[in-house]
Amino acid sequence: MSKQDLVREVETFMLERVIPTEAEHHHQMQEASNRWTYTPVMRELRAEAKAKGLWLFPIPEELGGRGLTLTEYAPLCEIMNWCNHGPEMFNCYTGTISNTTAMAKHAPKQLQDKYLKPLADGDIRSCISITERNVPSSDPTDLQFDIKREGDEYVLNGVKSWATGGAMDECQFYLVLGATDINAARHARHSMVLVPREAKGLSLGRIETVLGYDDAPFGHCDLIFDNVRIPVANLIGNEGEGFLMMQSTLGVGRIQLGMGAIGAAERAMREMCSWVETRMIGGRPLVDRQVVTDAIARSRIEIDACRAFILQTTERMQAEGMKAVRGEIAQLKVLAPEVALKVLDRAMQFHGGAGLSYDTPIAEMWAHMRTVRIGEGADEVHRDTIAKLELRRQAAWREANGQ
Amino acid sequence: MSKQDLVREVETFMLERVIPTEAEHHHQMQEASNRWTYTPVMRELRAEAKAKGLWLFPIPEELGGRGLTLTEYAPLCEIMNWCNHGPEMFNCYTGTISNTTAMAKHAPKQLQDKYLKPLADGDIRSCISITERNVPSSDPTDLQFDIKREGDEYVLNGVKSWATGGAMDECQFYLVLGATDINAARHARHSMVLVPREAKGLSLGRIETVLGYDDAPFGHCDLIFDNVRIPVANLIGNEGEGFLMMQSTLGVGRIQLGMGAIGAAERAMREMCSWVETRMIGGRPLVDRQVVTDAIARSRIEIDACRAFILQTTERMQAEGMKAVRGEIAQLKVLAPEVALKVLDRAMQFHGGAGLSYDTPIAEMWAHMRTVRIGEGADEVHRDTIAKLELRRQAAWREANGQ
Amino acid sequence: MSKQDLVREVETFMLERVIPTEAEHHHQMQEASNRWTYTPVMRELRAEAKAKGLWLFPIPEELGGRGLTLTEYAPLCEIMNWCNHGPEMFNCYTGTISNTTAMAKHAPKQLQDKYLKPLADGDIRSCISITERNVPSSDPTDLQFDIKREGDEYVLNGVKSWATGGAMDECQFYLVLGATDINAARHARHSMVLVPREAKGLSLGRIETVLGYDDAPFGHCDLIFDNVRIPVANLIGNEGEGFLMMQSTLGVGRIQLGMGAIGAAERAMREMCSWVETRMIGGRPLVDRQVVTDAIARSRIEIDACRAFILQTTERMQAEGMKAVRGEIAQLKVLAPEVALKVLDRAMQFHGGAGLSYDTPIAEMWAHMRTVRIGEGADEVHRDTIAKLELRRQAAWREANGQ
Amino acid sequence: MSKQDLVREVETFMLERVIPTEAEHHHQMQEASNRWTYTPVMRELRAEAKAKGLWLFPIPEELGGRGLTLTEYAPLCEIMNWCNHGPEMFNCYTGTISNTTAMAKHAPKQLQDKYLKPLADGDIRSCISITERNVPSSDPTDLQFDIKREGDEYVLNGVKSWATGGAMDECQFYLVLGATDINAARHARHSMVLVPREAKGLSLGRIETVLGYDDAPFGHCDLIFDNVRIPVANLIGNEGEGFLMMQSTLGVGRIQLGMGAIGAAERAMREMCSWVETRMIGGRPLVDRQVVTDAIARSRIEIDACRAFILQTTERMQAEGMKAVRGEIAQLKVLAPEVALKVLDRAMQFHGGAGLSYDTPIAEMWAHMRTVRIGEGADEVHRDTIAKLELRRQAAWREANGQ
Repeated sequence: MSKQDLVREVETFMLERVIPTEAEHHHQMQEASNRWTYTPVMRELRAEAKAKGLWLFPIPEELGGRGLTLTEYAPLCEIMNWCNHGPEMFNCYTGTISNTTAMAKHAPKQLQDKYLKPLADGDIRSCISITERNVPSSDPTDLQFDIKREGDEYVLNGVKSWATGGAMDECQFYLVLGATDINAARHARHSMVLVPREAKGLSLGRIETVLGYDDAPFGHCDLIFDNVRIPVANLIGNEGEGFLMMQSTLGVGRIQLGMGAIGAAERAMREMCSWVETRMIGGRPLVDRQVVTDAIARSRIEIDACRAFILQTTERMQAEGMKAVRGEIAQLKVLAPEVALKVLDRAMQFHGGAGLSYDTPIAEMWAHMRTVRIGEGADEVHRDTIAKLELRRQAAWREANGQ
Repeated sequence: MSKQDLVREVETFMLERVIPTEAEHHHQMQEASNRWTYTPVMRELRAEAKAKGLWLFPIPEELGGRGLTLTEYAPLCEIMNWCNHGPEMFNCYTGTISNTTAMAKHAPKQLQDKYLKPLADGDIRSCISITERNVPSSDPTDLQFDIKREGDEYVLNGVKSWATGGAMDECQFYLVLGATDINAARHARHSMVLVPREAKGLSLGRIETVLGYDDAPFGHCDLIFDNVRIPVANLIGNEGEGFLMMQSTLGVGRIQLGMGAIGAAERAMREMCSWVETRMIGGRPLVDRQVVTDAIARSRIEIDACRAFILQTTERMQAEGMKAVRGEIAQLKVLAPEVALKVLDRAMQFHGGAGLSYDTPIAEMWAHMRTVRIGEGADEVHRDTIAKLELRRQAAWREANGQ
Repeated sequence: MSKQDLVREVETFMLERVIPTEAEHHHQMQEASNRWTYTPVMRELRAEAKAKGLWLFPIPEELGGRGLTLTEYAPLCEIMNWCNHGPEMFNCYTGTISNTTAMAKHAPKQLQDKYLKPLADGDIRSCISITERNVPSSDPTDLQFDIKREGDEYVLNGVKSWATGGAMDECQFYLVLGATDINAARHARHSMVLVPREAKGLSLGRIETVLGYDDAPFGHCDLIFDNVRIPVANLIGNEGEGFLMMQSTLGVGRIQLGMGAIGAAERAMREMCSWVETRMIGGRPLVDRQVVTDAIARSRIEIDACRAFILQTTERMQAEGMKAVRGEIAQLKVLAPEVALKVLDRAMQFHGGAGLSYDTPIAEMWAHMRTVRIGEGADEVHRDTIAKLELRRQAAWREANGQ
Repeated sequence: MSKQDLVREVETFMLERVIPTEAEHHHQMQEASNRWTYTPVMRELRAEAKAKGLWLFPIPEELGGRGLTLTEYAPLCEIMNWCNHGPEMFNCYTGTISNTTAMAKHAPKQLQDKYLKPLADGDIRSCISITERNVPSSDPTDLQFDIKREGDEYVLNGVKSWATGGAMDECQFYLVLGATDINAARHARHSMVLVPREAKGLSLGRIETVLGYDDAPFGHCDLIFDNVRIPVANLIGNEGEGFLMMQSTLGVGRIQLGMGAIGAAERAMREMCSWVETRMIGGRPLVDRQVVTDAIARSRIEIDACRAFILQTTERMQAEGMKAVRGEIAQLKVLAPEVALKVLDRAMQFHGGAGLSYDTPIAEMWAHMRTVRIGEGADEVHRDTIAKLELRRQAAWREANGQ
C-alpha cells in the first residue's frame, strides 16, 4: 500500500467501520458491567485495523508500525480524530505513540521484551503518569512526586492524578515521572520509571469526569503509590533526564493534538452541514437561515487557516527540528482547540438538544477538546512563551536592521 | 420575617446548608441504587427550608407560598442559583412554579384538590411536557403531539422528549401540551391536559444527557404515550388555549432564568476569586497574573450590566405588564446565559482539571447554562424577534419624528 | 418647562436643528479659512438653544444653567450625543461643565467675575490641560509639568499635549494641572492654575489628528509654556489639591461619557435601521439578510444592558456618593465605548463606503469613541482597578460569611 | 539579482528609504499646495527603486517588470505593505498591476503604444473605475453605468465613485467598466473602455474620506461622465467581456491584498513590540503587563495562521489555477483584514494617543484596512459564497462516500 493509498484506507475505515458503530459502542458501554475495558466493537475494529496494516502509523516497521514521517502522519491524525476514540482503533492514541517511542529509545532490553512488544501489538496498554493535582501542568518542573532510590530499588510515594487510561484492565504498566532529586536544577530533577500494574502498594483512586463524561473505557484516574518498590532496572533512560525525555516526544504529540483538533472540527462541520439541510424550522430548512450559513463560512475560514499553519509547522519541524519551531508548536497548541471548540459550539447550537446529548458525538467532542486548552500547559502559559519568543525575535531584528 | 430579611435568610441557607452539602449530595447520588429520586440530603434540606418558610416564594400565601412580587422574587432567584439544585431546595424549580401557577389559575377544583396541594407542599412533583424531538423549541406552534377527544375522554398518542424531571419517582403528574385541533390557527391549536403518572399506556423512554450529565435526580426523558386515555375533566384551561396559557407564565420564567444565570455567574466569580488567590504557578499565586485579573474584571463588568438590565426589565414588567417588555425578555434570554457561560468558562480555565471535574460545580453549571441557549427558543430565534421589534420601533419613531 | 418636557425639547432640538444641519456644518468647516472657530451654523444653533433655555443643564440656575440633578441630566447626555458636536450646542461639552463647576467651587471671586460668567454664557470657551505626551493618562499622579512659585507669581514651564479645544479662537483661558511639589505624596503633588490665553510665553504647538480627523473647530493641540508667569491669585483651589479637585468632577464626567456613548450607539442604530431598509443588494433590501438583522438584535441587547447599568450607577452615585460606585464608574468607562464601537462598526460595515466617508456621521463617531478607550485611563488600567476592588470585596465577603 | 536576493533588497529599501521618510512624506503632504500629486520624496524614492530594478515585480520583463510568479511575488507584497504607500514606491499598486496586465493582454496595439509603456515606466498613472454609489461592490453585475455605441464612438454617461487615484495629476487614463448591453445575461452586460483624462465631458466630483483620511495623493473621487465620447478603438477586450476580464485579474489582486494585510499586521507588531519596551506606566515598562504580552502572543498566532493559509492558497492557485481556489480566495479576503485590524487595534490601544495620531502609521493603516472589509465585496457576501461552496462540497462528499 502506498502512503497516498493509506490516507484513503484510513478514511474508508473511519467511514465504514468506526463512525457507523459509534452508537453501538456507546450502547455497549452503557450496558457494560465493567466500563474499564474495550467494548466488543472496539476489540473487533482494532483487530480489523491491525489486520489491514492500519496500525501505529508513525512507529518504525520493525516495531510493527508503518514508519511514517511526521508530514505523512499528520493528515492521518486529522482523519482518525473524526471520532474521539478513532485513534485507538489504529493503536495511535497519543500516549501509546509516545510511550512506544520512549520505550523503544530509552528502555533497557529486558523491559522492551516484556512490555514493548505487547504494547505495539495492542495486546496490552500503558499509561503515562505525570500530573499531580497541586501542580499546574503548565509547570512540570515543579512536580513533587517522590522517587527515592534505596539500594537496588526505587521507592515511590505520592498520588498522581488525571492518569488517562490508567484504570483500564488492559493497562499493564505505568510510566511515572517523579522527582529523584528535588534539589537538582529544574530540568534535571525528574526521572521516569516503569511501574507494573501489579506492583504492591499501587492502587487506583478516584475517577475524574470531564464535564459529565467519564471517558470510559479510558478514563482519568488517581494512582496512589504507597511505598511502591520497583527494581532500578525499571528506570527509563537516565536519572534526571525524565523531563527532557518527556519534552523530546512533545513535537509529535503536538502535531497529533493539532491535527486531531482539525479532525474534530471537520466532523462537526459535516454533522452541521448535513443537519441544517434537513432540520426544519418554521417550514424552512435551517440552511435557509443566513446566521447558519454565516457560521458555516466562519468555520471553514478558521479550520483551513489553522490546518495550513499546522502543516507548515510540521514541514518545518521535520526539516529543521523541533527547536526551530518551538514558538509555532506553542501557537498551534493554543489555536487548534480554540478553532475546534468554536466550530463544535456552532454545531451544538444548531443541533439543539441533539447537540447536547448522545444523539451526535458533538457534545463529547466539545468536552474532550475543552481539556486541551488546559492540559499540557494552559493557553495562558503558552501565550506567555509565544510573547517572550516574539519580543526576543523583534529585538534581534531591530538589532540586525539597525532600527 | 420581612421581605428584606428574606434575602438574608436565603443567602444564609445557601451558604450554610446547600453549598456545604454539595459534595455529599454528589456522593449520595453516585452511590444511589436509584438515581431518580431525591438524595437523603436533598430531602433533609427541603424539609428544613420549608420549616423556615423559605418556600415557593412567588406563590400566594394561601397556597403555601410567600406571595412575593416579581421584583421581590428576582433577587432570590439569583441567590438560589448559586448551585444548580438550589431552587429545588425551596420548591422553586421553574417548572414547579409555573405548574403551580397554571394549576391554581386554570385547573378544575377537583384536580386542584388532588394535585395542587401536594405539589405546593412538596410532597409530589410534576413535569411540564412540551418538547418534541422533531420540532425546534423555537417554534412551539408547530408541535404535533396528538390529543384527540373521544366522548368524555382525551386520547393521547405520540412521544414527548426532554421532559425534565419526568422520570423522578416523585413526579406524579404531567402537564402535556398537544394539538387538539391541528388545523386551527397557529396559536389556537394546542391544549393542555393533566396526565397522571399511573395512566395506562404511558411509559418512560430514553434518558438524555447534557454534556455527559444525566442531571439526576431530575433528568430529561422521553415520555411515550400509546393510546393514553384521560377524562376530559383533566383539561387545564380551555381547549385551544394551551399555547396562550403557556406563554402567560413566560415572563416569570424568564426572570427566574435570567437571574439564575446571574447567580451561576456570581458563584463562578467566587470560586474563581478564591481559587486564584491560593493556586500557585511558578511560585506565585495565579492572582498575580494580569490575564487572570483582567478576566475577573471583564466578568464583573458583564455580570453587573446584565443584572441591571434584568432588574430594570423586572420592574417594567411588574409595572406595565409582560407585553410591554416583550423585546426585553427576549433580550435577557439571550444575554444572561451568554454572560454566565463566559464567566463560567473563565473560571473553568483558571481551575484547570478542577474546573472540568466534580471538584467544583463549575463544569456542571456550564453544561446546564449551555442548554439555556437552546431551550425555549435558540438565541438565533430570539434575536430574530428582537430585530423585528427594533425595526418596527425605528420605523414608528421615524414616522413620529418626521425623519 | 418641566424636567420631563426638557427631554422632549432636547430631542426636538437635536432632530430639527442639529442633525439636519450636520452636512451644512461639515461643508462650512471644509470651506472655512479658519478651522479653529465655530462655524456660522454652530453659532446660530447655540444662540437658539440658549434662547430656549437649553443650556448648561447640570449647572445651577444662578450660573445660567438648569440645575438638573445627575439622574435628570443623564438621559439628556444620551440625546445630545446623537451627534459628536451635539453637547456643544447646549454649552454642555464635558470640559465646559467640569471647568464651570471647578471655577464656581474653587476659583477666587475675581477670577470668577472675569472668566466664569462669560464661560457660562457661552461667550468664551476654556480648556482643561492635563495630558503630557510621556505620561499615560492612566497615571495622572506621574504628571511632570512644572509650576514653580516665585514670589507672587507662578512660573510655568513644559509642554501639555492633547489639549482639546485649546486652539479655538474662543478659548480664553486654560486650567492647567501641574506639579507644584513633585516630591510630595503622589496625590498632593499637583495644583491647578488658570492661564489666560494671552499669557506671555504661551504658544500653541502641533495639532493632533484622530484617525485622520482634526476634530475642528475644537481640535487637540500642544500647549507650549516657556516661562509663563501668572499671579498666585490664579490658583484654583489650594496648592497640592489639583489632583483631588480633578477627581471630584470625575463622576459627572463619566456619566456624560457613558450616556454619550449610548447616544452615539443609538444614532448608529437609527442610521443602520433606516439604511438597510432601502439599500438593495441582489434585488432585495439588506434588511432581508439575517446577518443584518442578527447584528441589529445584538446591538439592541448590548445597548440596553449598558444603559441600564449606567442609569443604575447614576442613581446610586446620586444617593450614596461617588466613592460608593468607584468600581461601577470604572466599569462603565470600559463598557460604554466598547458597546458603542461595536454598534458603530456594524453600522459602518452595512453602509459600505457611506459608512467610511462623510455621507454619514458613523466614521467620525467611531473615531471619537475610539479615543474614549484610551483617554482618562486605558481600558486595561480600569480593569486592573475593577479586579482589585472585586478581589477585595470577595475577600471581605468570605470573611463575613465564614467561607 | 536572484529572486532570493530580491526579498532582501525590498526589505532593505523599505527599512532604509521608505519607512525613515514616512514623516517627511507626511509633512510634505501637509504643506503641499496641491495634494493630488506625488510628494517630492515619493518621486525620489520611485526613481531610486526603479533604478535598482525594484519595479513592477509580477509583470513580464519585456514590459519593464521582473516577471515574478505569484509564489515569488507574494512575500514581496507583505514587505511592501509595511507602509500604506509602500507598493507605490515599486510601481506595484494593485490597480497599476491589474491595469498593466489588462492593457498588455487586451488593449489594441495603438492604445498600448500610447498608454501602456508610460504606465509601466511609471511616467503616468491610471485608474480603474468600477464602483457606483448605489450598487454594492458585492454585486458588480448590477452596475448601471451607461456606455452606448453610436457609430464609431461610445458615449458614456453616469457617475462613478470611489475612483482611487482618479484625481491624481499623474492619472492620464481611466479604465471604465460600464453596461454596453444592460439586457444581456448578468455576466455579459459590461464592457471596459479606456477614457483619456482630457476627454470632453469628463469631470472630477467630490473626494471621499476614509475615516478622516483623504488618502492623498491617491484619493478616492467621483468621476462624472456627461456625454463623454471615445472612439470604439478604445474598447479593451471584447464587448460584453468586461466583467470576465475584471474577474481574471482577481486572483493576483487577492494575494496582494491578503499578503498586504499581513504586512500591515507585521508593521503593527513591530511598532507595538518596540513601543511597549520603553513606554513606562507606573514606573514599569508596558511590556511587564501580561495583558500586553498576551495580546502580542494572540497577534503572532493569528498572523502566522493567516499567512500560512495565504501562501498555501498561492501555491495552489499557481499550480491548479484560480478556479480551483475560488473558495480559498474568498476565505482569505475575509480573514486577512480581520487579522490585520485586530493586530492594528491592539497596537493602537497600547500606543495611546500616538496610536491615533500621525505619530505612528497605525491609525492610517487601520483606516485603510477597514476599507478592505467593504471593498470588492463585503465580508458578509464572501461568507455567503464560502458557505455555498462548502455545502456543495459536503453534499458531494456525502454522495461519494455513501453517507
